[in-house]
Formats: sequence, structure tokens, C-alpha cells
Amino acid sequence: MTENKYDVIVIGGGISGLSAAKLLVESGLSPVVLEARDRVGGRTFTVRNKETQWVDLGGAYIGPTQNRILRLAREFGVRTYKVNEKENLVHYVKGKSYPFKGSFPPMWNPFAYLDYNNLWRTMDQMGMEIPVEAPWRAPHAEEWDKITMKELFDKLCWTRAARQFATLFVNVNVTSEPHEVSALWFLWYVKQCGGTMRIFSTTNGGQERKFVGGSSQISERMADMLGSRVKLQRAVYSIDQSGSGVVVKTLNEETYEAKCVIIATAPALNLKIHFNPPLPPLRNQLIHRVPTGSVIKCMIYYRENFWRKKGYCGTMVIEEEEAAIGLTLDDTKPDGAVPAIMGFILARKARKLADLTKEERKRKICEIYSRVLGSDEALHPVHYEEKNWGEEEYSGGCYTVYFPLASSHSLARCSASRWAGERAAREILCKMGHITKSEVWQDEPECQEVPALPFTTTFWERNLPSVPGFLKLTGLSSLLAVAMAAGVVAYKRGLVPRAKALLCATSLSWAFDQDCSLSPAPAPLRIT
Amino acid sequence: MTENKYDVIVIGGGISGLSAAKLLVESGLSPVVLEARDRVGGRTFTVRNKETQWVDLGGAYIGPTQNRILRLAREFGVRTYKVNEKENLVHYVKGKSYPFKGSFPPMWNPFAYLDYNNLWRTMDQMGMEIPVEAPWRAPHAEEWDKITMKELFDKLCWTRAARQFATLFVNVNVTSEPHEVSALWFLWYVKQCGGTMRIFSTTNGGQERKFVGGSSQISERMADMLGSRVKLQRAVYSIDQSGSGVVVKTLNEETYEAKCVIIATAPALNLKIHFNPPLPPLRNQLIHRVPTGSVIKCMIYYRENFWRKKGYCGTMVIEEEEAAIGLTLDDTKPDGAVPAIMGFILARKARKLADLTKEERKRKICEIYSRVLGSDEALHPVHYEEKNWGEEEYSGGCYTVYFPLASSHSLARCSASRWAGERAAREILCKMGHITKSEVWQDEPECQEVPALPFTTTFWERNLPSVPGFLKLTGLSSLLAVAMAAGVVAYKRGLVPRAKALLCATSLSWAFDQDCSLSPAPAPLRIT
Repeated sequence: MTENKYDVIVIGGGISGLSAAKLLVESGLSPVVLEARDRVGGRTFTVRNKETQWVDLGGAYIGPTQNRILRLAREFGVRTYKVNEKENLVHYVKGKSYPFKGSFPPMWNPFAYLDYNNLWRTMDQMGMEIPVEAPWRAPHAEEWDKITMKELFDKLCWTRAARQFATLFVNVNVTSEPHEVSALWFLWYVKQCGGTMRIFSTTNGGQERKFVGGSSQISERMADMLGSRVKLQRAVYSIDQSGSGVVVKTLNEETYEAKCVIIATAPALNLKIHFNPPLPPLRNQLIHRVPTGSVIKCMIYYRENFWRKKGYCGTMVIEEEEAAIGLTLDDTKPDGAVPAIMGFILARKARKLADLTKEERKRKICEIYSRVLGSDEALHPVHYEEKNWGEEEYSGGCYTVYFPLASSHSLARCSASRWAGERAAREILCKMGHITKSEVWQDEPECQEVPALPFTTTFWERNLPSVPGFLKLTGLSSLLAVAMAAGVVAYKRGLVPRAKALLCATSLSWAFDQDCSLSPAPAPLRIT
Repeated sequence: MTENKYDVIVIGGGISGLSAAKLLVESGLSPVVLEARDRVGGRTFTVRNKETQWVDLGGAYIGPTQNRILRLAREFGVRTYKVNEKENLVHYVKGKSYPFKGSFPPMWNPFAYLDYNNLWRTMDQMGMEIPVEAPWRAPHAEEWDKITMKELFDKLCWTRAARQFATLFVNVNVTSEPHEVSALWFLWYVKQCGGTMRIFSTTNGGQERKFVGGSSQISERMADMLGSRVKLQRAVYSIDQSGSGVVVKTLNEETYEAKCVIIATAPALNLKIHFNPPLPPLRNQLIHRVPTGSVIKCMIYYRENFWRKKGYCGTMVIEEEEAAIGLTLDDTKPDGAVPAIMGFILARKARKLADLTKEERKRKICEIYSRVLGSDEALHPVHYEEKNWGEEEYSGGCYTVYFPLASSHSLARCSASRWAGERAAREILCKMGHITKSEVWQDEPECQEVPALPFTTTFWERNLPSVPGFLKLTGLSSLLAVAMAAGVVAYKRGLVPRAKALLCATSLSWAFDQDCSLSPAPAPLRIT
């Protein structure tokens, strides 16, 4: 019936699956990698053409703490370069551009600053409670898995400025909306990326570097090494384990047999496969509850990088509902060739703008760049590349799987952890007696060239009070704060008309401009 | 290559797919139904054996307004009978059983009563805003789709009694948790079922009747009629529309060709199929965001229906975290044979108890029945049947698909509406020129034997104030209410210690027993 017999079948030719197969080959086993697409790389996707030389339309950024991929890159001689952050970054909010340096845009309003400072500090503190390898064991796992990040922000943030930026923070980091994700899951995600500073920073953070020549090279080099063991255009539709081994069938009507199988895809893509015997009930339900985010990655190419001449590095943090893009980074080649700006259309906006034509999206993007950078040159690109990951049947979205409410706590036990590809390979090696059980989970030594420098926090960042803490400290005292809160709650509950509530609230209004209108609870729910 | 050529391929042999095929045959077309399982019926599942005669382990209950299925049943001569509700229902809460009559357990505490009355009234009023065929057009669609039912209950409910019962209400109706479902989606769901009273009631509501002989008969009769056009054990893994027609492949290595295809499965099960060309981006993302609920349906059989002798009809509404079951109904046969109680293990509990053995679940269930009914006889069943729908690869869960946050508003446009099977068939008939466009959407006349009687509301139900409305009305006046709210908010925000907040709150405490402890906002988030 078939000569396709191997020790291990690996389903999925992304970095995870290929690195699993590589490890198995290096250990003397015989794996085969079945990849649905006509290319390896999964959610990394480097396109080469004359306009761009090369462009990463999928996952591209790496930085300190990402030592496993850096180790692989080094092994294959793929070098990294630093994303340009020499000049000013720019924060665009309420129709104005504010140049800044550092990881986060500064907040000038003192109340917004306190609020903002408290927000990051609290998120990192909450993250410290969550075990990276078993988030469901966090002391408040159940509670935090019942609230969305939107609810958490509504509870933590007193100013609109902080709440709006917090929304962008979720959009940028996990390509979904604060109301879509479990607080437990998101706090875990940020924690395992190294915290709020590490995940959002370019220098010393998650966006510090890119690979010279594109990120797909890592997968391509592994595929080269694996040779004929990597089979493209082999979408798997069936796994049969009812006999002694595993029988796997592919769309092109091939059959593969092996002793074990490693599924190295996003968990939801298990659904593409018909299982015999079927998956256990909890796993069967989990895979219906772990969607992948929504993002369109957009690259605009210009004759020259005019933004650098204006003193901008190319990073734009854009807060405006009508703007297509939420975050940009300079995408000029390391030698200064092919000037370009990379921008993300994120979450709700990716869904909203999915039906426009490519040309319409390009125009929208150029318009916002023109406004943010204050330059007509932004309106005259020489080339455009984009990729809507929502259209990918074998990814489901990008960049990552997210967990909606309840999934992380009650179901995630059936899920995998970071760098699960290599770990799965080692579990098989362990079962076959090649390594011991203690060798299955391995820490990765730090990459020497890309060290994780500590983020220094100032005395003030550590010790400044939150907004309610400040109100308590100052002579305004709890009395006024209580009156204030009472007004808001009373209004919210419909106990007093808006005018009365405002009258009460305005007793504190000297302290707050429109930018940080005090609102300890979300906008009242309109029920007509 | 194949002789399997048809006008239309229908994927899924549940009621929806079979009724579509039936309509196509009646219109002179040639459809084929491909069903993954070895039986028709989908989420209805009647088992026959000597212990039970017959038992519905899947969908079973029908009532007024469900006119389409009643029309089909009538056509095939399948009769309905009324679920026993002659004797008292029983509400079990805080370890005590309270017999009652009517749809909802009564609340004796006056504040809980006001709160409860206001809750149902408000949910139905919100439902009135939501168009059944296009929930995303509701005036507050976007806003309501960003909050969970848990958040809505936290906003609406002032008493713990109402909030806890509201949780059970969601568990029972959609086999999921209030924090899992979008408020927009849930309110829409309740509305299209006829409102809070209709959906929860036995008499004159969704659980009024069952089919004599079991609900699968409807599908079985349709399958009989369709004859060899229904193919079992044909799980579809591929749909190719790259040519002029449709080519469909099944796990057992058959190929079917047709002009059109109707997919009559839960939307998430589209993921079981590999599409060429791939689905559009929004549809591709939607199908990862529409899980099906979690439920284990459990039938306990007894020598006699001892509960009726004790004056209980068999309906138990059980509020206790440790109890496996949330709702029961008498499942004795219409002629009095085979005494049985049907109970649902719902949502979080279905996930929690999935790993127990069948015997362990049976014991747990008998124990709670024994306590609720105050009878040792409950501990001595003669037979047990159960079905965990989470284990079903080709359902994903039961009873129904639910929409988590954001899906209904931004993505549901790519989804289908009620009785989509017959509508899809008529759309094909329209395209082929058999019927006109105006005939595609058809209203269903009411079934004469099962009329939807109006629910009468009393003057007091319509006009009693909510809890905050009452506080405003009474001499307690807004001042006290504001002080109260201030105390709670101040405590929540950490502005005053618990003692002070309580001191403030207890000024109103004469009015509230533990059962309706005032809490206008959810329990404060513990951040250590």
C-alpha cells in the first residue's frame, strides 16, 4: 500500500515542526515533515522580488530572550540587524504628532502619568503571580480567566488616555481586542515575553532585530538540511491510530506510516484533521476555543527614507480610530537600501478593512503616514506589499493564538507550551530510550550577541502612587474622592441626573483636562 | 473517475441537511446527503434498548413557536407528548428545597424579587432592540458585543440571589458560562426563542413537549424518504470548486460531483474540510470563533416515579456549586412506563466532571437527587444512560454554537440564520430558476396543536421598580443610596478599608438579608 514508512511523522513545516524533525534526525531517527503549503516557514513568510530585494510578510522581529531561534539562526549563519531607532519615535494622538525617545510614549498630564505608570506596574506584578509553564496554577487563575482585558483596564485605569493606550497595547501585542482576550491569558503572554517593557520595546525588546535576508531563511535552511524528508503540499486530513502505529493521509492521496506523530500546528488547526480514535472531550472542545489574531502586515516603499531626514526613526505609535495602522517600524534594509515603512492593520481594523482593495488600503495607509510625519512625500510610494493573514487556511490568522475567556483556566491543560516542537521531539526520544526524562525540558542558554539587558525602573516609577492612591495621599483626601465616586456611580445607576453627577464630579475637575477625564468605571451601559 | 454525480451535495445528515435535501427532491432535483457518522440526526440522538425502550440523549424538547420541526413531525406522523409538570417543581438553593408552580422559582425576599423582576424585564427589553435576522444591526450591537453576560449581570443585578440564578439561566439555556458569551449574542438567542419566559418554561415554553418515540425519528423518516441518497460514514474532508462544479471527497475515498454544495453543519465544523479555493478571510476567521457549548445529558432510571408520589413533577432547578446537575425534567414515558429523570451537567461542570467514570457521575447525580427530593429511593436507580457531547468530533459540543465577544458584531454577517437548511435549498432552487427570489425566505405558519399562548405579565411585573429605582422612590432617597454606593466604590478602589465601607453600607442593611447582599458592582478584583 505504501513505502512511506518513518519513525516519526511531523505535521507542519513551520519553525516548530522543522526544528523537531531536525532534532530527531540529529538523534539518528527518521522523521518526515508534511507541510500543507507549497513552502516551509508557516507564519514566517519571506518574499523575494526586485522591488523589495526581500520582505518579511509574516513574523520578522526578534530580540533578547528569544534564544532558541537565535541559536538556530547562528547555526545556519543567518545574521541579525537592528531595526532603526536612532532618531525620534513619534506618538500620534488626537490629531497631533509628539516625538519621543524610549519604549513607551510619555504622558505629560500628571494624572495620566500616574495612571499609566500604575497600569504597567500592576500588569507586571500580576504577571509575576502566573507560572510560565502552568498559568492555570496562578493563585487567581480562575478569577482572572473570567474577565477580559477590557474589564481589567476598566478597573485599573482612571484616565481615558491610559485606557486608550492600553487598548493599542493589546492590539499591537496579540492582534486582538481587549474585550476578546482572557486577562489571565494576556498577562501570561506578556509575562512569558519578559514583561510590558520587553514586549513593547524595540531596543532591548521584542522588536530589536530582524534577520538579514528574511526570517524564512531559518526554516529554509532546516528544510535544506532535511532534504527529501520535507514534503510540501501535503495537507493532512486524517490520522488513524487504531492499529499499532500511526497512519496519516494527505490531500494528494498519499499515505504515511510511523510509530509516532507530532502535530506542529496551531491547536485550532487540529480541526483540519479527522481523528481515529477521536480526541478526548476536553481537547475536542479546546480546539474550538483558541482562535488566532487578525492582522494585515503592510509595507510601503519610498524613493528615500524622508522620515529620517525629518528626525524620525520610522516608529509611529498611532492612536486614532480612523487610522488604518496602529504601529509602524522602519523597514529599510540594513545597508540603507530599499527605504520602507512596515505597518500593522490590527484586530478590529484588519476585519473592517479586509474587504477594501489592495489599492484602497495602500492609499489609506499613505494618508495617515503623511499626517503623522507631516510630509507629502508619504503620499508617493514606489511600491506596496501586504499580507492579510486572516485568509490563510493553514494559519487561521496571525501573529498568535489567543485564549478567550475560560479557555486558559479550564482547558489549557490540554494545550502546549513554548517551543513545543523541540520538546515534543525530545519526548519521543525519551520514549524510545535515546534520552532520559530529565532531558526533555531544556533551558536555553542566552545568546551572547543579543543579551537581555535589565530594564531599569526609576525610584518614581516604582513608588509613585496610582491615581486613587494619590487622591488618598493629598489633602483632597478620601472625602472628596468618595463624593466624586458617588457622583459617578449614582449617575451610572441612574439615581441622579447627569447634571447632578457632573456638578459633583466637577469639584475635582481643576485637576483633569479632557485627556484624563476621571472615570473609575466603564461608560454606563445604555439600556433604552 | 466517479459516477457519483448529483445536482446538489448536502454535507451533514442532521435535521437541517436532511430537510434541505427533502425540499430539493420534492422540487425535482437530485441531491445526495453525506453524513460523517454511522447514523442520521446530528445533535438529536435517540437510542433504543430494553432498559429504556427509547431515550433521547441529544436534543429532545420542543414547544410553541418551533413550528418548522412540528410541521415535519406532523408530516411523518410523529406525535408529541407533554413533559410532566402536574405536580410541584422544586427549587434547591442553599441546601433547601422549595416547591413551586410556574416557570421561574419565586423569590420571597422583596429586594431579590424586585431585582429578579427587573432582570427578566430588562433582558426582554434589550432583546426587543435586536433584529432576529440581523443582530449586528441592533442600535447597541457594537457595545453589547464587547461585554459578556457576566458583565451585564454585574451591572443589572443588585442581589446575589438574582446574579446566581442568572448564571444558571445562561448555563441551562446555552450550556456555557455567562463570562463566555457575548451579551449581544445571548440576548439575541433568548429573543429569537421567544423571550426569557418562553425559553425557560416547560408549559407554554421550550420544554413543553417531546416526541413519542424520540426526536431522531424526524431525521430517520426523512432519511427513509431520501433512500439511497443518504450516505452514512462519509466524512467530507475536501471541497474543490476550482472547476466548473463542485468536487467533494470523503474519508472512505469516494468522490462526489455536483453543481452546488450545501454545508449543513455547525459553522466551526467547516474546519474539518480543506477548501479550494480557500474561504474568504472573514469566514476563515469566524469559524475559529464559534465554539459549541459543553453538556453531559444524564438519564437516571428508577423502579417507580417516587417523586410524583411526594408531590414533585420531576423538575428540579438546582443551585449549588457542588451539585453535578443544574436542571432536571421528568423523563417517564407518556404512558407512565420507564420512570426516569433527565438531568443536565452544564458548562463548567461538564468540563470538570468529564474525567470521572460513568459510575462516579451516576453516583454524584443520585446523591443530589436524593437531597433535593428528600428521598433515599433516589439512591437506587435501576439503569443509567449518559452522553457527553464534548466527545463528538462531528458536533464539537451541544446544544448549540455560541458566540464569544466580538464575533456576533464583526463576524456574524458571514454566518447563517435559523432553519438555514431549507433556506439554502430554496436559494439553490431560486438560482436554478425553480422559484422566485421572494420565495426564498418563508415564514412558517403556526402549528395548530402547539399554539404559542401569550405570557401574561401582571401590572406589578410591568411596573415594579428595580432595586435602585426603589431606593430612589422611598424615603431612603438618593442621599443614602449615594452614600451606600460611595462606600462600595471607595472600598473597591481601596480608598477606605473594608470596615469603613461596611459601616457605610450597613446603614441600609436592615433591608437586606445575606441572600440579597447589595453589590452594585462585581466583587473587587484581588490584586496582591
